[in-house]
Amino acid sequence: MRIQGAWRRSIEELDSGAVRVFDQTKLPFEIAEISLATEAECARAIRSMEVRGAPLIGVVAAYGLVFALEHDASDENLRAAFERLVETRPTAVNLAWALKVVRISVQHAPIGERALAARHVARVIAKDDAAACEAIGRYGLAVLERIWREKKQGAALNVLTHCNAGWLATVDWGTALAPIYMAHDAGIPVHVWVDETRPRNQGLLTAFELRAHGVPCTFVADNAGGHLMQRGDVDVCIVGCDRVTRRGDACNKIGTYLKALAAKAHDVPFYVAMPWSTYDQCLVDGVRDIPIEDRSGDEVRLVHGLDGAGARASVTLLPPEQGVRNPAFDVTPAELVSAFVTERGVFDAAGLEAEFKRNAAERLHG
Amino acid sequence: MRIQGAWRRSIEELDSGAVRVFDQTKLPFEIAEISLATEAECARAIRSMEVRGAPLIGVVAAYGLVFALEHDASDENLRAAFERLVETRPTAVNLAWALKVVRISVQHAPIGERALAARHVARVIAKDDAAACEAIGRYGLAVLERIWREKKQGAALNVLTHCNAGWLATVDWGTALAPIYMAHDAGIPVHVWVDETRPRNQGLLTAFELRAHGVPCTFVADNAGGHLMQRGDVDVCIVGCDRVTRRGDACNKIGTYLKALAAKAHDVPFYVAMPWSTYDQCLVDGVRDIPIEDRSGDEVRLVHGLDGAGARASVTLLPPEQGVRNPAFDVTPAELVSAFVTERGVFDAAGLEAEFKRNAAERLHG
Repeated sequence: MRIQGAWRRSIEELDSGAVRVFDQTKLPFEIAEISLATEAECARAIRSMEVRGAPLIGVVAAYGLVFALEHDASDENLRAAFERLVETRPTAVNLAWALKVVRISVQHAPIGERALAARHVARVIAKDDAAACEAIGRYGLAVLERIWREKKQGAALNVLTHCNAGWLATVDWGTALAPIYMAHDAGIPVHVWVDETRPRNQGLLTAFELRAHGVPCTFVADNAGGHLMQRGDVDVCIVGCDRVTRRGDACNKIGTYLKALAAKAHDVPFYVAMPWSTYDQCLVDGVRDIPIEDRSGDEVRLVHGLDGAGARASVTLLPPEQGVRNPAFDVTPAELVSAFVTERGVFDAAGLEAEFKRNAAERLHG
Repeated sequence: MRIQGAWRRSIEELDSGAVRVFDQTKLPFEIAEISLATEAECARAIRSMEVRGAPLIGVVAAYGLVFALEHDASDENLRAAFERLVETRPTAVNLAWALKVVRISVQHAPIGERALAARHVARVIAKDDAAACEAIGRYGLAVLERIWREKKQGAALNVLTHCNAGWLATVDWGTALAPIYMAHDAGIPVHVWVDETRPRNQGLLTAFELRAHGVPCTFVADNAGGHLMQRGDVDVCIVGCDRVTRRGDACNKIGTYLKALAAKAHDVPFYVAMPWSTYDQCLVDGVRDIPIEDRSGDEVRLVHGLDGAGARASVTLLPPEQGVRNPAFDVTPAELVSAFVTERGVFDAAGLEAEFKRNAAERLHG
């Protein structure tokens, strides 16, 4: 997508074989790129959230395994690197999925060919993710267009989103934002309510993306969404997700669940956009079984922005003795999700499982 | 309540006749007191939120009218000052209530006696507010104790609160926090989840109050509450309010409604603490009729805290071209409120109206 006038992807391979990513801990205040050339650098980038977004961390983890195998392609290192990388973040399933795809693809190959094979697979994962997001965009566009046509002629379509499920969170296009970009490009007068998404304020990334693409948007505190829906100012919610269980419980950034409850209370359709790599057929009950990452309280304590001179700066909200709890995700039960927008079409929870079953063999062996 | 080791009230009359308040835009980062000696100073303090909290701004407005009458006690100035002060903030009804009480009490008095009469009334309003909050605390304590006794022996009682409805928001004790202070003092092992309450982060005031009183508390982003309730980590919610309609729709700080929806979804009792001055018998449908203040987007753009050297500092989150919407309150419909904790007892929505009718004559003429 567009950044500083050029069309870029959130992860790009360099001639050296390293990958270049944006340091998302500095965005939107500073556009800084970093290159990752080792497994340890990939692991650090995921853990520190220099890269973030379930699809993107899957791709970065896959490259981490590539770099590990380039260093040492033994069975032992394949296993050890897999284990190290899979533990960098616990909630998003794409990370484990991407690592498994790489491992399955190379584990029976001769040791001398593994690194190159892994790199090919990592490239395919990245390319597929961009294609999946583009398809999500097309299917989601049809959804948004239908809702818009049901409104009074000419009125703007008000979409609320939480966190950042844009191109920065994926390889390109994004999941939740892809339909919005396409709706805007198709001439639908779309307006986006952008949730701040405390504590890490990923709404700043969403607003940054939308501004760069010229999509009208209004930034709001996370607290505002219930009021906006109660007043009829939201036509549809669309969010990304980090893991969706077999029955359709959707784990996404903390606070998503509160918006889903409000959407239900006001009959606002609530869509979850996801590539299939986010679907976890091994889990059923998301509330019971999805591990929710508890992150450092410092993410709540410290707020990053710009000082009066326009330099990046932080302020501390709380003294060190103040206890903080910082769960990073929550689970929206399937019954609150109107439908899932995937690269294969739009499915309700039951349809999602049926589609998975239909495609399971193809997915595993394709 | 306790601040820096001493028991203080949030508003105190000085020998000069002025009142001294804490500058709550600087709290909790700096404990600064300011004195208000003119109507204009009172109006500015309310508008800028140097003083905040529905009950406290009522008292400050009453003193504003006192100062206006000390300057010019004519009918004309009484009317004009009333109009100016009542417009300083639109949502909380206590402000209009306190001003009306002062006006009613002095308008038939000779001009030369009005200022002194008004001062007596302002003092009574302040004293009554502290007494009302203390009574709310006692009634609320019984509620908390009952919920705690229903839990497994010895387990902590987990209370979630939003915004600051503590002594800083009232004259003393607070509304939502009064029962918590009393429960703690009574030896109930109470633990409080403190919502940050973006955009103005009044949760920092609540955490500051609770720490000063020694009540265990954990600070969380506003987004976390749904997850905490879903996991069974919240036994009861209690919040203050800025206006309650005849049928019990409760207007409170933006984001309250989302927590009430989550509480309903998980059968967590949701209490609204209020002095009767918050009850607006003139309105019925809160969603339709309560004016919701839209405040400056700069409250969202700018975050205040401490820099690395411990000095007060701010960071900017958003560029000026980014649109922001900042509704300050939302309305929780009566059906989501388990009960209202008032200085006259604990009432459900129907009981609230019955109690109002019973006491209407006494309230107006007492």
